[in-house]
Amino acid sequence: MTILEELDLPAERVLTDPDVTSSLAHDEAEWAPAGRPLAVVRAITPEEVQAVVRACFAHSVPVVARGAGTGLSGGANAVDGCVVLALDRMDRVLEIDPLERLAVVQPGVVNDDLRAAVAEEGLWYPPDPASSPWSTIGGNVATNAGGLCCVKYGVTRDYVLGLQVVTGTGELVRLGRRTAKGVAGYDLAGLMVGSEGTLGIVTEVTVKLRPLPPPAITVAGYFSSIVDAGEAVAASAAAGLTPAALELVDKHCLEAVDDWRNMGLSVEAEVVLLARLDEPGAAGERAAARMVECFEGAGATFAVQSTDEAESEALFAARRLAYPALERLGPVLTEDVCVPKAQVPEMLARIERTAQRHSITIANIAHAGDGNLHPLLIVDHGDEAARARAQRAFDQIVADALALGGTVTGEHGVGLLKKPGLTAELGPAVLDLHRSVKHALDPRGILNPGKIF
Amino acid sequence: MTILEELDLPAERVLTDPDVTSSLAHDEAEWAPAGRPLAVVRAITPEEVQAVVRACFAHSVPVVARGAGTGLSGGANAVDGCVVLALDRMDRVLEIDPLERLAVVQPGVVNDDLRAAVAEEGLWYPPDPASSPWSTIGGNVATNAGGLCCVKYGVTRDYVLGLQVVTGTGELVRLGRRTAKGVAGYDLAGLMVGSEGTLGIVTEVTVKLRPLPPPAITVAGYFSSIVDAGEAVAASAAAGLTPAALELVDKHCLEAVDDWRNMGLSVEAEVVLLARLDEPGAAGERAAARMVECFEGAGATFAVQSTDEAESEALFAARRLAYPALERLGPVLTEDVCVPKAQVPEMLARIERTAQRHSITIANIAHAGDGNLHPLLIVDHGDEAARARAQRAFDQIVADALALGGTVTGEHGVGLLKKPGLTAELGPAVLDLHRSVKHALDPRGILNPGKIF
Repeated sequence: MTILEELDLPAERVLTDPDVTSSLAHDEAEWAPAGRPLAVVRAITPEEVQAVVRACFAHSVPVVARGAGTGLSGGANAVDGCVVLALDRMDRVLEIDPLERLAVVQPGVVNDDLRAAVAEEGLWYPPDPASSPWSTIGGNVATNAGGLCCVKYGVTRDYVLGLQVVTGTGELVRLGRRTAKGVAGYDLAGLMVGSEGTLGIVTEVTVKLRPLPPPAITVAGYFSSIVDAGEAVAASAAAGLTPAALELVDKHCLEAVDDWRNMGLSVEAEVVLLARLDEPGAAGERAAARMVECFEGAGATFAVQSTDEAESEALFAARRLAYPALERLGPVLTEDVCVPKAQVPEMLARIERTAQRHSITIANIAHAGDGNLHPLLIVDHGDEAARARAQRAFDQIVADALALGGTVTGEHGVGLLKKPGLTAELGPAVLDLHRSVKHALDPRGILNPGKIF
Repeated sequence: MTILEELDLPAERVLTDPDVTSSLAHDEAEWAPAGRPLAVVRAITPEEVQAVVRACFAHSVPVVARGAGTGLSGGANAVDGCVVLALDRMDRVLEIDPLERLAVVQPGVVNDDLRAAVAEEGLWYPPDPASSPWSTIGGNVATNAGGLCCVKYGVTRDYVLGLQVVTGTGELVRLGRRTAKGVAGYDLAGLMVGSEGTLGIVTEVTVKLRPLPPPAITVAGYFSSIVDAGEAVAASAAAGLTPAALELVDKHCLEAVDDWRNMGLSVEAEVVLLARLDEPGAAGERAAARMVECFEGAGATFAVQSTDEAESEALFAARRLAYPALERLGPVLTEDVCVPKAQVPEMLARIERTAQRHSITIANIAHAGDGNLHPLLIVDHGDEAARARAQRAFDQIVADALALGGTVTGEHGVGLLKKPGLTAELGPAVLDLHRSVKHALDPRGILNPGKIF
């Protein structure tokens, strides 16, 4: 009996037509290789997920979980002969508890949908990856997704209270808690966050919520050099400011957004910094004025604060659209290094030099306020020589981030693209610990094999 | 060659006189059994810690790490024939970086000393267990310590960026990061936090810092019944308030503090609730007024707000002194359950009934705002019958907390006292995952064996 027969799932849950399954066999990391799955199972209950993992455990068949497939590191890419577990149909918000400030959701709930559902109760789920209109909470948990506001409000990890998980041996277990605090045993829920489907498959998520944030003041700064913008970021950190967002968008990105959506945003500046300050009342005014000073002190050609919600939203919308807009222009190799804030100017300077040295177009968006940079390496379709140069530039950027005390991935995860970088960052002893933990929770190595390390 | 000879450490580092070692063989959990150590090693460098663990690994000798010994669950209690690794002399603050908002400290740094050191830079390390004048950061990490302000600002876990750790095989490794964000590999630093010395021994801690908090308004509420006070807690959560502290202290505790320190705090009330509201400006005023309304609505006999720093400090100092004051009266069996906020009144009512049913004095302090209750079971010295009743009351409280959707330990850790509770809370499948992870990182089972599970 084959594994597919053994599964005994309703036929509509199991997809095997290669034309269909191939589209569900990779994420948005265009440069990462993807294998050919045996089948895609679109599960709708935790028990179905468990049945799939149990069958795969019995037959030592790999299982690769996926949500919306918006990942940028190849973490959800199929391996040959695997079962892809698509969780996008497990998309119900199961509970919102305003008093305990928590929500319980299935992994396929889209980030923005959760955000909208809890807003009706005056509550807020802060982690806001730029992919929030499409990406799912399950995927956000798998990669420990960050976003724009995490510079002040934290990442997915900081909002996961509890998980229901299917382990590598097919056990369906609850990890974590529903209470505000708890130290009962090891933090296995936390360990699952960011483990990219290699330690367990998440079938339910209990998230912490906050009250809706106060209204914010937006400060926009226009710079004629990216290094000046980096200096402004370091200056704002040195000034002790705590922005609720501090984003960098360069001209490549603004032009791509304009070309696509005609938003009229391209400006006579190389780089724009967008900050949000959300301290209430006079404190917010003071912080915004201080941010303008930091921008001007670092050489901004123009810096202005605005409380116009529509204008601010347009600027931040452009930021969010930068990645899909650039993707239209050719295969994008996305970087995700994160460096200490003081090193942001130096890292941006090195990226600029790397672009010149390797004759590669590198656009830049960045969660600049926490040193998380996304240089985007753009190559024409079919230009293999440029592709080779881009790979060398990518490797140089990773090496530079490590040399400056940074990490190879701030929020996208290791997946396939950052495996060599991870080895360089962690070293052999810590990698051995990873292997031990992996083996402990997935003894047959069936969960998303070949990813991370 | 014995393990002690093999260690080849300076003689003053190694204590073997049983009169001396016995005082370092237990924490403050008076009810938890402690074994007799082979020796206590007072290490002063990470390399010495590594040398001890390597020798213990080679000989399969248990290693029990300890900081100040202020734990309340027996987590640092010696087992027979172990080496106790005392880390209190590794007490240097190695680095404070105001721009990156982080500090690097040795594990033996006392919590209040770190707090004072970073305050000079205008920065704040929020986790503030009531033991903060004595407990060490290493111990705080081992138990994932909470405290008063964590209802708004989070627990130790939320402030640990990176760790240097000696593993169960004697490797000295760095886990985590120094950057604001990072998802490079599994969150092994997070896994270490709260693992009570069973997965690794922490030799250095990199903590995240915040700007100093704004001035706060204190609201005090006086209640004639503990259940009314619990209703006030639930009402403040339902009102959407986010206090920076919300503490409950009952009359037993206030009287004990007065008897000891003559602070004149005993009042004509059964219970006092202390809240701090630290939203800046008018928002803080509104929140404080709303808190007064919540207290009054739940039946407070008196509720008042105060911006008098000295008066507020006296009230919170009394809260912090409650535990040592009660300890003077007899052996205290300390509870640490945490329940959903809505269940605080019901849990407090059940504790009251349990005290009556088992004829036991139960004093109450609580981080009420996050549902973390510390019923303190007090027994006269030498009264074995009362001791047996107290143990039954303790078991009943644990069972009630689980029945109400809570956890057996909010911040003290499992240690020895909560092992049966943990088994009930997690169930066999999740306990098996714990055993697998433990075995992965400590294959010979030498690190603090017999604790947690």
